Amino acid sequence: MTTAMSLFETHKKLLNDAVEALHKREYYTPYPEHPKAYAPEENEAGRNWFAGMMNQDFKELDIESDEWVGEEVSPYMQTGIGVTYPKLSVETLIENAKAAQSWKNVSIEERSAVLIESLERVVKRYFDIAYATMHTTGQSFMMAFQASGPHANDRALEAVAMGYHEINRFPNEVQWVKPMGKFDLSLKKTWKAQPKGIGLVIGCSTFPTWNTVPGMYASLITGNPVIVKPHPKAILPIAVVIAELRKVLTENGIDPNVIQLAVDTLSNPITKDLAEHDAIQLVDYTGGNAFGDYIETLNKTTFTEKAGVNNVILDSANDFKSVAQNIAFSASLYSGQMCTAPQNVFVPENGIETSEGNISFDDIANGISKAVEGLVNHPKMGAGTLGGIQNDNTIKRIKDGGDFGGEMLLADQDISNAEFENARIFTPRVIVTDHENLPAYGEECFGPIVFVVKTKSREHSVELAAQLARTKGALTCLAYSTDNAMMDSIEETMNASFTPVSFNFGGAAFVNQHAAFSDFHVTGGNPAGNASFTNPEFINKRFVWVGNRYA
Amino acid sequence: MTTAMSLFETHKKLLNDAVEALHKREYYTPYPEHPKAYAPEENEAGRNWFAGMMNQDFKELDIESDEWVGEEVSPYMQTGIGVTYPKLSVETLIENAKAAQSWKNVSIEERSAVLIESLERVVKRYFDIAYATMHTTGQSFMMAFQASGPHANDRALEAVAMGYHEINRFPNEVQWVKPMGKFDLSLKKTWKAQPKGIGLVIGCSTFPTWNTVPGMYASLITGNPVIVKPHPKAILPIAVVIAELRKVLTENGIDPNVIQLAVDTLSNPITKDLAEHDAIQLVDYTGGNAFGDYIETLNKTTFTEKAGVNNVILDSANDFKSVAQNIAFSASLYSGQMCTAPQNVFVPENGIETSEGNISFDDIANGISKAVEGLVNHPKMGAGTLGGIQNDNTIKRIKDGGDFGGEMLLADQDISNAEFENARIFTPRVIVTDHENLPAYGEECFGPIVFVVKTKSREHSVELAAQLARTKGALTCLAYSTDNAMMDSIEETMNASFTPVSFNFGGAAFVNQHAAFSDFHVTGGNPAGNASFTNPEFINKRFVWVGNRYA
Repeated sequence: MTTAMSLFETHKKLLNDAVEALHKREYYTPYPEHPKAYAPEENEAGRNWFAGMMNQDFKELDIESDEWVGEEVSPYMQTGIGVTYPKLSVETLIENAKAAQSWKNVSIEERSAVLIESLERVVKRYFDIAYATMHTTGQSFMMAFQASGPHANDRALEAVAMGYHEINRFPNEVQWVKPMGKFDLSLKKTWKAQPKGIGLVIGCSTFPTWNTVPGMYASLITGNPVIVKPHPKAILPIAVVIAELRKVLTENGIDPNVIQLAVDTLSNPITKDLAEHDAIQLVDYTGGNAFGDYIETLNKTTFTEKAGVNNVILDSANDFKSVAQNIAFSASLYSGQMCTAPQNVFVPENGIETSEGNISFDDIANGISKAVEGLVNHPKMGAGTLGGIQNDNTIKRIKDGGDFGGEMLLADQDISNAEFENARIFTPRVIVTDHENLPAYGEECFGPIVFVVKTKSREHSVELAAQLARTKGALTCLAYSTDNAMMDSIEETMNASFTPVSFNFGGAAFVNQHAAFSDFHVTGGNPAGNASFTNPEFINKRFVWVGNRYA
Repeated sequence: MTTAMSLFETHKKLLNDAVEALHKREYYTPYPEHPKAYAPEENEAGRNWFAGMMNQDFKELDIESDEWVGEEVSPYMQTGIGVTYPKLSVETLIENAKAAQSWKNVSIEERSAVLIESLERVVKRYFDIAYATMHTTGQSFMMAFQASGPHANDRALEAVAMGYHEINRFPNEVQWVKPMGKFDLSLKKTWKAQPKGIGLVIGCSTFPTWNTVPGMYASLITGNPVIVKPHPKAILPIAVVIAELRKVLTENGIDPNVIQLAVDTLSNPITKDLAEHDAIQLVDYTGGNAFGDYIETLNKTTFTEKAGVNNVILDSANDFKSVAQNIAFSASLYSGQMCTAPQNVFVPENGIETSEGNISFDDIANGISKAVEGLVNHPKMGAGTLGGIQNDNTIKRIKDGGDFGGEMLLADQDISNAEFENARIFTPRVIVTDHENLPAYGEECFGPIVFVVKTKSREHSVELAAQLARTKGALTCLAYSTDNAMMDSIEETMNASFTPVSFNFGGAAFVNQHAAFSDFHVTGGNPAGNASFTNPEFINKRFVWVGNRYA
């Protein structure tokens, strides 16, 4: 395995830097996030690659199959992209993974090196992946580039770094010498991080690489072969990542089936067959609550990111206009299809205090509504902020909801995307409602909608937000307050519900964004999910320490 | 909280040494294990304390109650010891624990200091606890002293050290500065290790402190108040530990209900009411499989040590006599009532190779039988090695089993304990049987019994041991082999079943003993339990990292 050891020399500094960054939690990334950091011809090449890939078989996995399937639809063109992938049976996937379990005997240094090398190869595919992401998820080009490219790579590297650190934190071997009075008892002891088995990573339709690579690289760095089962409507982006890793594995004399792509269709799903298979010991899942709850009841080690209801608590502010713009952007970005997007804005019936005096509840609701209206109709900002809607059902659910038992302050706007005239677009509705309308705002309503909820007081706002976090889950909480005691109270109450709070965000700070190497993502403490990447537990649960002793 | 901070200065070096030892995994303990390391009058005082405690209320907890219960029986005297404890209702215990949740606001330094101080106080109670342990569990004085005193303190300190390390591994606060091209985005970020809630620790009847303090101190160091529910037949030893901790808490101005003792009786158990209570988020459990499996199905964070079937693989040996003596001692120590005691010895039908040539299966079985017979009848060694049988049912189960479908090579011996004429004693039966008699040797038969199992070959022995580990669980495996390739094969196969292997133990090395700061205990990977103390996961699952951000 000399190739992989020389790869380790190549990537050792990056790995050590990443381990250090993980513990410092300051800003860190080795992967520039802006497309402009890359040669302009790469962008062009990526666009061409995607155009040429349409209606073709995806052969980069180097997999033979009698059956090729694919049913992805571009939210921008609203036509199928026609890419097909080799379909293997559940049994074949499992047998392949079992045969690749010698991956655990590849040293942790070599595993790290191979995995980081795959990320370096992914860098060269950023633009391919960006266009693949756009035309499966509906993300704007910029978000697709950043989220599926450098930000996903950050999260993958973070998992590799945490795994490398955790597995190296105990010695491989010591001579243990216990003084027994007249003599010493001396034993050689060795320790191994024994991988739990085979990992399954179940992807979602909106962030096909960002939400998949943390679990995938976490299971891999800890020695578990992995089967990735993407959402049938968002396969291509992660297929490229998997293909690159398979190439690196093969080049280094390692069975490429250490990582496999499992594909299915909406009408013929295989996810449960995989998840329930005896050989699968680890399951990473991103998606809706019903399926996530089912995953958690399997007698396996599970890492879930489900849905939650993210809230905004408005207590007081210096500059309400900035607050309204910030909320409007966070709620409109990718049309509210981010797991971290705010849904409810809790505002006391008496309004809030600002540097310009009290602003009434109605003025606040109108202010937020106007900010959304202005943003989505902005000729330069609107289309790029909103992107497209991934799934028809997202629109149907909101249309069917009507005014959701409140007052529709802002209806969905009729806007278009200059580049893609057929793009599936739906702008956020702004609904004003009373706190008693819990059945509406108290459930996650995925997609472009904002509820401005009238509460009895600021304390009542906090109480409602905490109650929802405890019962329905929450990944984030955005709060605005200029009162230190109130900030402490919000922080303590929301943190006790295992929800992180972002205070007084304005300008370029958005609650949606969780940065690798600094912000943990998903809390692991409330019903929104039992995982958090990348905390130590996200790694340590994937293997078992086994110690041997030799007299 | 200045008292606790000065306590931290007192204990800082010990804490840092313990953290370092945890990661070096060499021999380490701050607590001398031999009674001779302590003043002789302490032993006398402990004996007198226990004698004086009999038939009294245990008032050291400083708890008022209308109901005092206790039904412990000394296996040495076979009479009730008559100690009673204040009984609080489940609701009172939960309300008290909830009121003590401000424990999470005590800094990690102060929590560490308070917990270590309690261990220092426990040192002064070692002999009290030793006699309390003898007369509840039936352990010999030496084992009772070591296991419930210094070895338990080691495990508690280990948990405190791991908690201190894990909670300090991320910064409390950083200024995160992201370059955005024309400007920087700067956010203050803070992180908190938010405790999951209230911990319940369910003790067992055989190791009332050693098996209780890891979970108890692990939940406490991570900020969770704890309710300890000991086995109704083994309360006094852990009651002393809890009393000492409550005193230290009170002295430092902290609510003593951070730690509470919950008592019940066999006829009126409260364990399920506690375990199922909404307020309980963490459950540590040591005991039988049926209840442990139930605990694991609760929708809580659970840490279980259940039962397994521990096996010995006899492949080849230099000195069979030493092997037989080692097995005999490990199986006889505390009459096989240790979770790490070997139950089955797998021997190929063609016997094994030794430096003196081949030894036949029959000679091996007879050799082991003779070694047990010699040990238990040894006038100086016998009674002290065996101790007493904690529970009548342990004897009944073995008596009822008769020859267990095999041949009883050694029946239980008629021996007595010179110090306690009424001691409940039962010596190990040695049963020879064929590998096909899986229904007998394939289940855990807790207590003094050894099966010498005839297998088809050495490979078959390994296969059986691994199969039992996977299906029934195993905490240990003892193996004897002089063949390097065979040792590698045993190690790989058993480790793949998440079972640690001890090779060629003789002299003073016994498979039963797991040393804190070096040997992980319970693997967490097979049905014998989902916990392992003290690995990082044993700590990290007890709290949630929550990060806040401030613009």
